[in-house]
Amino acid sequence: MATVEWAHGKLRFIDQTRLPFEEVYVETEDYRRIGEAIMQLQIRGAPAIGVAAAYGAFLSIATTKYPSTTALKSDLFAAIDFLSRTRPTAVNLFTGLRRVRHTAEKSQQSSVDGLREELFSEARAFHKEDIEACRRIGEFGAALIHSGSILLTHCNAGALATSGSGTALAVITTAARQHKVVKVFADETRPLFQGARLTAWELIREGIPVVLITDSSAGFVLAREKVDAVIVGADRIAANGDVANKIGTYPLAVLARRHGVPFYVAAPTSTVDWTTAQGDLIPIEERDAREVTHVRGMRIAAEGVAVFAPAFDVTPNEFVTAIVTEKGVLLPPFGETIAGLFREPIP
Amino acid sequence: MATVEWAHGKLRFIDQTRLPFEEVYVETEDYRRIGEAIMQLQIRGAPAIGVAAAYGAFLSIATTKYPSTTALKSDLFAAIDFLSRTRPTAVNLFTGLRRVRHTAEKSQQSSVDGLREELFSEARAFHKEDIEACRRIGEFGAALIHSGSILLTHCNAGALATSGSGTALAVITTAARQHKVVKVFADETRPLFQGARLTAWELIREGIPVVLITDSSAGFVLAREKVDAVIVGADRIAANGDVANKIGTYPLAVLARRHGVPFYVAAPTSTVDWTTAQGDLIPIEERDAREVTHVRGMRIAAEGVAVFAPAFDVTPNEFVTAIVTEKGVLLPPFGETIAGLFREPIP
Repeated sequence: MATVEWAHGKLRFIDQTRLPFEEVYVETEDYRRIGEAIMQLQIRGAPAIGVAAAYGAFLSIATTKYPSTTALKSDLFAAIDFLSRTRPTAVNLFTGLRRVRHTAEKSQQSSVDGLREELFSEARAFHKEDIEACRRIGEFGAALIHSGSILLTHCNAGALATSGSGTALAVITTAARQHKVVKVFADETRPLFQGARLTAWELIREGIPVVLITDSSAGFVLAREKVDAVIVGADRIAANGDVANKIGTYPLAVLARRHGVPFYVAAPTSTVDWTTAQGDLIPIEERDAREVTHVRGMRIAAEGVAVFAPAFDVTPNEFVTAIVTEKGVLLPPFGETIAGLFREPIP
Repeated sequence: MATVEWAHGKLRFIDQTRLPFEEVYVETEDYRRIGEAIMQLQIRGAPAIGVAAAYGAFLSIATTKYPSTTALKSDLFAAIDFLSRTRPTAVNLFTGLRRVRHTAEKSQQSSVDGLREELFSEARAFHKEDIEACRRIGEFGAALIHSGSILLTHCNAGALATSGSGTALAVITTAARQHKVVKVFADETRPLFQGARLTAWELIREGIPVVLITDSSAGFVLAREKVDAVIVGADRIAANGDVANKIGTYPLAVLARRHGVPFYVAAPTSTVDWTTAQGDLIPIEERDAREVTHVRGMRIAAEGVAVFAPAFDVTPNEFVTAIVTEKGVLLPPFGETIAGLFREPIP
């Protein structure tokens, strides 16, 4: 299963809104369709969104006959603007788009086809980096997991959330291959059930024992069951190590701290937003009321009720034990260890 | 709307599993049907269960022709045993049944009809006490609410959870009638959506602005929005003030503390179990996996996933600001203030 992949001039992706009930793959060369897929969460997970958007930017200029590279760039930047408005929180989206935009801005190519090739190479490189980042996050993170561990995760930070093996789930599957994982509690993750639908499905396919719980059961599980570590992904990490991730992550971090359980965040460095000083500056997407009031098209809430549906929350850095990146494990004080990642010039 | 009421020799109740989509009332004189209704959560909410069970115990012996009061008591005690096995956590169930059992045990009546009348009077008295307790909880609790308050509640501790005006919701509706409530955030309360279905429905009917959130959004709401108090009901309160209530209450209490928001528990003294020293001794019911994997009959989780479905969690007394009972507001140290309730001999 490839969440997002490049297939003969098209982006091919699995429609995650239909998983695990149906495995439907979509192939498109229309960047607007990719934007729509991101908005509707057919493609979801910060790293996967970034890769899809980078390919989407390329696809926006892949086939049109342009009189000049200037004309191509004009279309490209418009498409990048469109794609950057699909979702506000996950920074990988902007990282992927910025990579393509910078390539265009600094290109010396005078030939349209030459520029196109450069842009494709950049999207491709961003994709390959994501795959490699997942692999390395898995390795670095697994080293933190003790033998005989019971783990707890929230939402889906698996293969489906990336173009590789995942972030938090890469840690779990790598540790499981090292025979260190006894079982995994998966928060169902309301409102869209990414835990119940996607994480449970991925872990079952990997043969890792998984126990589904409602999100609000995590407190009871941490208090009464032995849990050795909580591991989650991230949608954006501020320069000080505050973490925006799927709504429900913050309560989990507070409870993990109270019960002395390490709280690990696994994310590629493309998730780090060094331009945002702290978590309360991260824009938090609000989703449509219907995602809360309806489940699979059926109403579950009283008619006429107002809804507040933030898609993410922010976990203050004080609750984060370590951030596992493809460049290694960052420890507090995160302000310093994150700054260390950016000593080299930003691409 | 009466959640449970006595109607011409039958118990009449509203089927809460079908609310708010359908208002279906059930009338029965069969105590086994009442037990089934409690198990299936057609009747739910600790006080409502207690009242229904007390009437159920009476109904078990209401019409049979008995040769002696001994024969009647034998049937009665068997029915009480059956009813006491329906749900393990809410102590009001046992309180209601104990009241009827004690009446039978200490009765001097030699006539079957006389004993029957005594038992009915006791069930009726327990019912009336619940209605009055709700009213007084509302009054005592409303005094704790400041003008202009934004409140947050979990699950349903409303009229539907009692035979009166509710516990936590009685506080809210009484405070609202005093024009002190700006709005109420209602946790949807997975897995059975008592917040989305029942609390939202009750508050809308009362004309109180209600905003529905997923359970795991409460942390974000407490961190970012102004919330003046969290108010919940209880299924059992241990002698030291630890509170068993709907799963998800404990995380909410921990988060309320972190954000300096008072955490109030509203419950009649019939919810206090002075024989259970502390919360970790309270039996916690586990519900069927299907309540988590399915919503309104539709599967929402990956096939084959294991489930852990505790129905309640335990909030340590240190997180409870006050317990609002019909006898007044109990403050810490709860071990002492609760003991004060039981200075008179236990009925």
